[in-house]
Amino acid sequence: MILLLGGSGYIGQAFARELERRNLPFKNLSRREVDYTKFDSLLGFLKSEQPEFVINAAGFTGKPNVDACELAKADTLAGNTLLPLTIANACATLDIPWGHVSSGCIYSGAKIVLNGSERVEKDLTKSELRGVIKQSPENIHGFTETDAPNFSFRDGPCSFYSGSKALAEEGIAGVGRSYSWRLRIPFDEFDSPRNYLSKVQRYAKVYDNVNSISHRRDFASACLDLWQRRAAFGIYNVTNPGFVTTRQVVALIGKYLKPAKRFEYWASDAEFYQTAAKTPRSNCVLDAGKLLATGVKIRPVVEALEDSLRDWKPE
Amino acid sequence: MILLLGGSGYIGQAFARELERRNLPFKNLSRREVDYTKFDSLLGFLKSEQPEFVINAAGFTGKPNVDACELAKADTLAGNTLLPLTIANACATLDIPWGHVSSGCIYSGAKIVLNGSERVEKDLTKSELRGVIKQSPENIHGFTETDAPNFSFRDGPCSFYSGSKALAEEGIAGVGRSYSWRLRIPFDEFDSPRNYLSKVQRYAKVYDNVNSISHRRDFASACLDLWQRRAAFGIYNVTNPGFVTTRQVVALIGKYLKPAKRFEYWASDAEFYQTAAKTPRSNCVLDAGKLLATGVKIRPVVEALEDSLRDWKPE
Repeated sequence: MILLLGGSGYIGQAFARELERRNLPFKNLSRREVDYTKFDSLLGFLKSEQPEFVINAAGFTGKPNVDACELAKADTLAGNTLLPLTIANACATLDIPWGHVSSGCIYSGAKIVLNGSERVEKDLTKSELRGVIKQSPENIHGFTETDAPNFSFRDGPCSFYSGSKALAEEGIAGVGRSYSWRLRIPFDEFDSPRNYLSKVQRYAKVYDNVNSISHRRDFASACLDLWQRRAAFGIYNVTNPGFVTTRQVVALIGKYLKPAKRFEYWASDAEFYQTAAKTPRSNCVLDAGKLLATGVKIRPVVEALEDSLRDWKPE
Repeated sequence: MILLLGGSGYIGQAFARELERRNLPFKNLSRREVDYTKFDSLLGFLKSEQPEFVINAAGFTGKPNVDACELAKADTLAGNTLLPLTIANACATLDIPWGHVSSGCIYSGAKIVLNGSERVEKDLTKSELRGVIKQSPENIHGFTETDAPNFSFRDGPCSFYSGSKALAEEGIAGVGRSYSWRLRIPFDEFDSPRNYLSKVQRYAKVYDNVNSISHRRDFASACLDLWQRRAAFGIYNVTNPGFVTTRQVVALIGKYLKPAKRFEYWASDAEFYQTAAKTPRSNCVLDAGKLLATGVKIRPVVEALEDSLRDWKPE
């Protein structure tokens, strides 16, 4: 049996559906049944039920967005840092392998090759980078799992959300046997307040940036593949390979959904942060090479976007 | 055997001395010997050594003061929140009782009786309170262990240090059997950069406020007494009963040490925070009644201050 924590959440639902599809028996445990945030309760449940694998899809993301985490620091840390540490400890006690839904939002920017040398560029909205991003995307390299997070409490400024997620990866590291699966900006064909494709359509103005993103089902599927293939434990960037600019996403929405709306963009980072956002946002490119090297298949990002928009299901 | 973590720190040293004095066998474990911040390592050590009790005096306080914690958020959380949670989990696994050096700096102010009714006053520097504080100290009531912290991530603003300490108490609560011993502003007769009496003498200007404070040896002694008497597990304010204003402390320093220096005070909170401090400071009165009700003896605060200054040992 596989134990699923946070199975009613946006990402947890995708795990539940994918586990069903694969006919893998699982238990979707709610905190009402067992307060798994407390070590004793969780350990007792693990001892009696002996799951072969545990999936932690629980966490605190902030509603409607990460700005809410700045006002709920204790809940953010309890949900995103203390809970994974408790799960790590309980699983280590019984030597149960597990996987944690981490986040790629612990990076900012990308590695850019300019004049033959590679350097980290934290701000991808600079006008001098537009040409590189558009005309020579091969010169934009994503962060790999060996790059230290650069949008975290150790390397700030960062949002409280990102800080809490990066700290969880640190806390988990070296304890028992676990996967840290890094999700980024989930999307799919189901219109939802959590779906990136829905958000882009509903924003008053669009923030033009560059990102690696994760199709929700592709994410859950790749995570389960890693476990079912018995890939080495550790951290994995689980994003659809490649990256997209927000303008590309808007163009795809225009092509497939033909919305009446004319999209407007924030004139600058300064305008965006003054008007629409309180805490800094992570915008970054991740390298999915480690995931792909295990043999796990995942669609390139533009294909996943086109498939989602072609099959779009309004709310 | 008693296991002491953080035994080389300012408070840990006091525990080590008090354990020696009581002829209680203990092991002062360093992180170089065993990385006890990692659950597997700590659990392995506990399994092999089977201590009857564990004392956690490790933590991250920031040097030279708590402002440093604002710039070291990950270390602050790792040391003050994640570590106690890991210890709680490991001790719960083996049902080992333990005690955690918590902090009273998760409160601000006091409960004040004015016109017959009691209310929480977060800022004790207000001029209209001077009379109450000086002339009717019986109308100043300390926070008890049942009062929720009001200088924490849940009830801010707070310092990152205080937030991390309050969150640890939450994380520990309900896991295994533990004491949370709340220390506040340690002092004793040994001149040291960590000693409140040394700090007051060395500050460019003194910040006039009202506080409950803990004599370092009295603190360690009372904590061990709680354990040796098998007092109920839970949270205890471990401060010398009563409270003092900074002006009273300065007057006592003048009386016993006769320093050449003339003490100056910050004109206002505003001046203090603009000039000398980056993050808000906790100044508060705690009620030591729960500790005293167990039968544990601890000197009243003015007696502990006078004894320390009478026996003053310059560095």
